[in-house]
Amino acid sequence: MNNNTKDSNSEKVFPSGEDLDGAQNILIIGAGLCGSLLALRLGQRGYNVNVYEMRPDLRKTDISAGRSINLAFSDRGNKAMKLVGIEDKVKELCIPMNGRMLHDKEGNTFLSNYSGRDYEYINSISRGELNGLLLTEAEKHENVSIHFNKKCKSVDFEKTTALFKDYHTKDEFIEDADCIIATDGAGSALRKSYYLEKKFLFSFSQDYLTHGYKELSILPAEDGGYKTYKNALHIWPRGDFMVIALPNLDGSFTVTLFLSYDEGEYNFNNLTTPEIVTEFFQKEFPDALELMPNLVDDFFENPTAPLGTVKCSPWHYKGNTLLMGDSAHAIVPFYGQGMNASFEDVVVFDKVLNTHKEKGWETVFSEYERVRKPDTDAIADLAIDNFHEMKDHVANPIFQEKRKIEMALEKNFPEGYSSKYSLVTFNEDIGYRKAMLRGRAQDKAILNMLADGVISTEDDIKDILDKVKTETEAILEDDRIAGLH
Amino acid sequence: MNNNTKDSNSEKVFPSGEDLDGAQNILIIGAGLCGSLLALRLGQRGYNVNVYEMRPDLRKTDISAGRSINLAFSDRGNKAMKLVGIEDKVKELCIPMNGRMLHDKEGNTFLSNYSGRDYEYINSISRGELNGLLLTEAEKHENVSIHFNKKCKSVDFEKTTALFKDYHTKDEFIEDADCIIATDGAGSALRKSYYLEKKFLFSFSQDYLTHGYKELSILPAEDGGYKTYKNALHIWPRGDFMVIALPNLDGSFTVTLFLSYDEGEYNFNNLTTPEIVTEFFQKEFPDALELMPNLVDDFFENPTAPLGTVKCSPWHYKGNTLLMGDSAHAIVPFYGQGMNASFEDVVVFDKVLNTHKEKGWETVFSEYERVRKPDTDAIADLAIDNFHEMKDHVANPIFQEKRKIEMALEKNFPEGYSSKYSLVTFNEDIGYRKAMLRGRAQDKAILNMLADGVISTEDDIKDILDKVKTETEAILEDDRIAGLH
Repeated sequence: MNNNTKDSNSEKVFPSGEDLDGAQNILIIGAGLCGSLLALRLGQRGYNVNVYEMRPDLRKTDISAGRSINLAFSDRGNKAMKLVGIEDKVKELCIPMNGRMLHDKEGNTFLSNYSGRDYEYINSISRGELNGLLLTEAEKHENVSIHFNKKCKSVDFEKTTALFKDYHTKDEFIEDADCIIATDGAGSALRKSYYLEKKFLFSFSQDYLTHGYKELSILPAEDGGYKTYKNALHIWPRGDFMVIALPNLDGSFTVTLFLSYDEGEYNFNNLTTPEIVTEFFQKEFPDALELMPNLVDDFFENPTAPLGTVKCSPWHYKGNTLLMGDSAHAIVPFYGQGMNASFEDVVVFDKVLNTHKEKGWETVFSEYERVRKPDTDAIADLAIDNFHEMKDHVANPIFQEKRKIEMALEKNFPEGYSSKYSLVTFNEDIGYRKAMLRGRAQDKAILNMLADGVISTEDDIKDILDKVKTETEAILEDDRIAGLH
Repeated sequence: MNNNTKDSNSEKVFPSGEDLDGAQNILIIGAGLCGSLLALRLGQRGYNVNVYEMRPDLRKTDISAGRSINLAFSDRGNKAMKLVGIEDKVKELCIPMNGRMLHDKEGNTFLSNYSGRDYEYINSISRGELNGLLLTEAEKHENVSIHFNKKCKSVDFEKTTALFKDYHTKDEFIEDADCIIATDGAGSALRKSYYLEKKFLFSFSQDYLTHGYKELSILPAEDGGYKTYKNALHIWPRGDFMVIALPNLDGSFTVTLFLSYDEGEYNFNNLTTPEIVTEFFQKEFPDALELMPNLVDDFFENPTAPLGTVKCSPWHYKGNTLLMGDSAHAIVPFYGQGMNASFEDVVVFDKVLNTHKEKGWETVFSEYERVRKPDTDAIADLAIDNFHEMKDHVANPIFQEKRKIEMALEKNFPEGYSSKYSLVTFNEDIGYRKAMLRGRAQDKAILNMLADGVISTEDDIKDILDKVKTETEAILEDDRIAGLH
């Protein structure tokens, strides 16, 4: 093991070897977005890191289906990129989306900005490109090794060993380490071992929405350009279901249909023929259908997948093993925060390491869970809220008035007001839980004052600000007295 | 199979054989409180019922440890006893508890009634005696058979068969039925099959509190009487932990210590010697210790058990299998509603059968879950609320003022006001969810008006009633507008 770090991009890189007094060999399960970022950061800190990934190296394999899958990337994720010094490289992969472009049934569109502040926007980014970049950056460190095609089957958390199967040789083998961190996603092998072994009280939940999703696509125009407006997250909200679209660098859009499995006139269970799929889109999404001559092929080639939330506790077993990223807290995609939350995990873990590493892994893991879990629980709940907001509320008059008022507040008082969306998305120094509590109280204040005629969109904006602030504080105080938080 | 019902106690017994058009053979897994009541009711309705229970027949076996275990029995449970016509027999097993008897550290006691209405109280009842009565009543029906010492290992919900192991012969055997209803408690074999088979999207959660519990006892006085006040649920609230005691018919009390596993000065992990256990009780519960010379023996003989909440969905697979009682919704014991909720399941199921049985089991099961699950989710959350209320809030001045006001409201306006506790416990015709929403809004209204000086315990009681009602409605309306319910 060598302590040199070959990468010197990061301003915050630790002197090599600083962390080597504690456990030196860290085994990471999973080289997805969270695992590869964690490997990079722990490599920068001088740990000896081995990463085992079940899939082949996505930089060398043509996983065409994965090429155009994109995600929302925003300030919390970017804070992690700054930490590891690759903010500029990531920026090259980003397509800014300034707001939601709403499409009604008649094909009318309406752009609703994400913030009243021009400099606040989210980005569409390719999962594959970003993951590849993180792997390449991590591998620049001699003390980081990534092993592909090795699937973790189970973890012995008493012995701090993991059992793997090599997909090429079919051999099974056991690896040990000073500690094991599982970033192996919603189907985590470590979490499964925690659950099935029953060696300690393990709280666990998996909650599925009644809706599933299916990915479709809008292909690039013949000239390679975009067939619809590039710099927005497109939404076709229809109350009980919706379609969204995010742009890709190649001129295409990745389109996602969110729909009930078995309720309503049209659902995944009864969309079984090209005719009925086309009829459904013709009736509900005619302008989208025009952009998607490939709809029926996509629809029947691509799988329908469920939407689930996973929470659990504890995340760690002593100082031996730790869950991080989706393995600890898988969420539904409606706040665009899944990847950002997992990246933020690494930032929070890094900070806890700074403060507590002398006390050993058990203290680090337990302190990390203590400070982090309230925030990941909150973003899980916020993401479900936003499912209803996106498919339904965005098309609801009183919610549209609220949004109009909040845009005006943010524009007029850039330092004085942030909507719930802004608190969650653009305020990376406020935790998700605090953003949720304040954001929900603000929403309740504005909706109720609109309903009661206490404020209207015609009022003086400074008056509105004062009333919203006063009412928000009153709501938070009432909840505090009633013991609700 | 014979359709005669030998029991004619119930006014609501159906004409024998009425339900026999549908599936006739019902297999029930588990002959605990819920399973034996369900068997009795389905027997009364004329179904051919076979019940399989893993334990021996508790009427014939001397399970001494189980003899004195008691439970809170109240109006929702009693509604089920009325349905099956055994209300009077159950009443003989009941010890009324009119309120909470609070014990402070100095041994002072304070009786806080459960209701301002004299005729509203809860009861302490022996689990074993009640279960035995239900078994005996069920077995009076020729069409009901109960098989003991047969443990269910798994359920094939596609084939509607269950695999059992006979504890005597060690043989394994398979039984089939027209439908299978699992009332096999928090560790349900059917629920485990739903979870592990992964044949459909199964939402599931198990959540443990940081606290566990241990059962202790206050033995009868030498003359066979009670060593402390009989007609109350005794509580020693200490903020982070508590002791409670419920009376038994033989003059003893079953005592339960609720304590953290690993937090605080004293916890289950460090109470490891007779000296430290005695020191803990001497310091925190001196008056209880005086009544328990047997404390140390009880403490080290009895196990420490965890406190968990289980929720899941769906409860049924097609028309083949259904979860009922704790197998579908295990809750913590702090509202005294676990048994009552499971009994109420049978009442709700019976009502759904009345309306939907012609449409077949799938409709019955799915309609039953639709109407019932919001209420069992609510009582699960309420039970956790009450954990904090019992160990902490009951000793908190503002909560005591609220309680005082609510007692006065109930006394002065017996038809006009019911506290959250009364709504949950004594209003069996209001669902748990409605009781929770209204009860929480009332609590919030009173606590905030007390904190803001809008009301005080000295005010005119009619004035207080009007203010509480107005503020409660405003809170419910604000939440409705904000989309919170």
